[in-house]
Amino acid sequence: MASGSPRRRELLSQLDLTFKVERIDAEEVFPEDMDAEKVAEFLSQQKMQAFPKEKIHAQSLIITADTIVTIDRQVLGKAKNHQQAFEMLKKLSGKTHSVITGVSIKSLEQEVSFSSTTKVRFKKLSDDEINYYIEHYQPFDKAGSYGIQEWIGKVGVEWIEGSFYNVMGLPIQRLYHELCKFVES
Amino acid sequence: MASGSPRRRELLSQLDLTFKVERIDAEEVFPEDMDAEKVAEFLSQQKMQAFPKEKIHAQSLIITADTIVTIDRQVLGKAKNHQQAFEMLKKLSGKTHSVITGVSIKSLEQEVSFSSTTKVRFKKLSDDEINYYIEHYQPFDKAGSYGIQEWIGKVGVEWIEGSFYNVMGLPIQRLYHELCKFVES
Repeated sequence: MASGSPRRRELLSQLDLTFKVERIDAEEVFPEDMDAEKVAEFLSQQKMQAFPKEKIHAQSLIITADTIVTIDRQVLGKAKNHQQAFEMLKKLSGKTHSVITGVSIKSLEQEVSFSSTTKVRFKKLSDDEINYYIEHYQPFDKAGSYGIQEWIGKVGVEWIEGSFYNVMGLPIQRLYHELCKFVES
Repeated sequence: MASGSPRRRELLSQLDLTFKVERIDAEEVFPEDMDAEKVAEFLSQQKMQAFPKEKIHAQSLIITADTIVTIDRQVLGKAKNHQQAFEMLKKLSGKTHSVITGVSIKSLEQEVSFSSTTKVRFKKLSDDEINYYIEHYQPFDKAGSYGIQEWIGKVGVEWIEGSFYNVMGLPIQRLYHELCKFVES
């Protein structure tokens, strides 16, 4: 798996499969006029293109993924500092947003990509709760500035619809399903 | 917290509160004609009644909880052996069921109880998948014979609606909300 995310690694390990993680650095840029729903899948494809072809062997599968958060047609990436994280969480407070993870799978013979969307509703978060979370959890490596598996997910997320693990960064059930199809075909 | 469930303990610890766990043994029986939706809350109240009153002090809160799984108006409890677990998972395969956790909170002055429902849809599980899961995870301490945080939850759960943590045994966001109200009043 070509990903630097520890959460993706943890989820994938729980499929009881053998895999190896390699980090690739791809710029997370997308066309400005692209539909928010297409961005995550596009970015997973960009990462796949950045993966060196000579490292793909027979019997191996490469998986890349990218997660974004969208609210009111706006794409939220990762925050650089406390202030940006605060503004993002303020934007999510009391509302429903979408978390979209795009995934690409590639072997020597085949390539597929797909995306999965989960809706997430936050309660109205107080400024104290937002500041407490940012100070204690430093969510600067996460799209939308929160981890659903962390404190803020437990006290703040009222309701979700879709895959929970997708919000953590990998739609693991869908991935398992696609991997089964991939291996069979 | 009066509960023997390690999952509830883990979830509660992540609210960043101080608490102590005590095990109480209450029989999990309920009137046969009771609506399936009421059973979990009723059982949490039964556990609260079984908690020794002399152990409730000023400044302390007691929390009890019970989780059940319902499908087609039938309540699924815990399986006693492989065969029963297999039958339950066969019943859940390819369908949507409800996971209901009832919670009671009590202090010297007040008592409240509530329940939270999450809908969960499993893909069609193969017999091999069900047997693999039961052999490796021994889900005999769990209502409905599965843990959503375990392998079967990752490969089998296509979709949920409601609180994820509720399926693990504690509707943690609702509990946080109720605890805040409890302390304020």
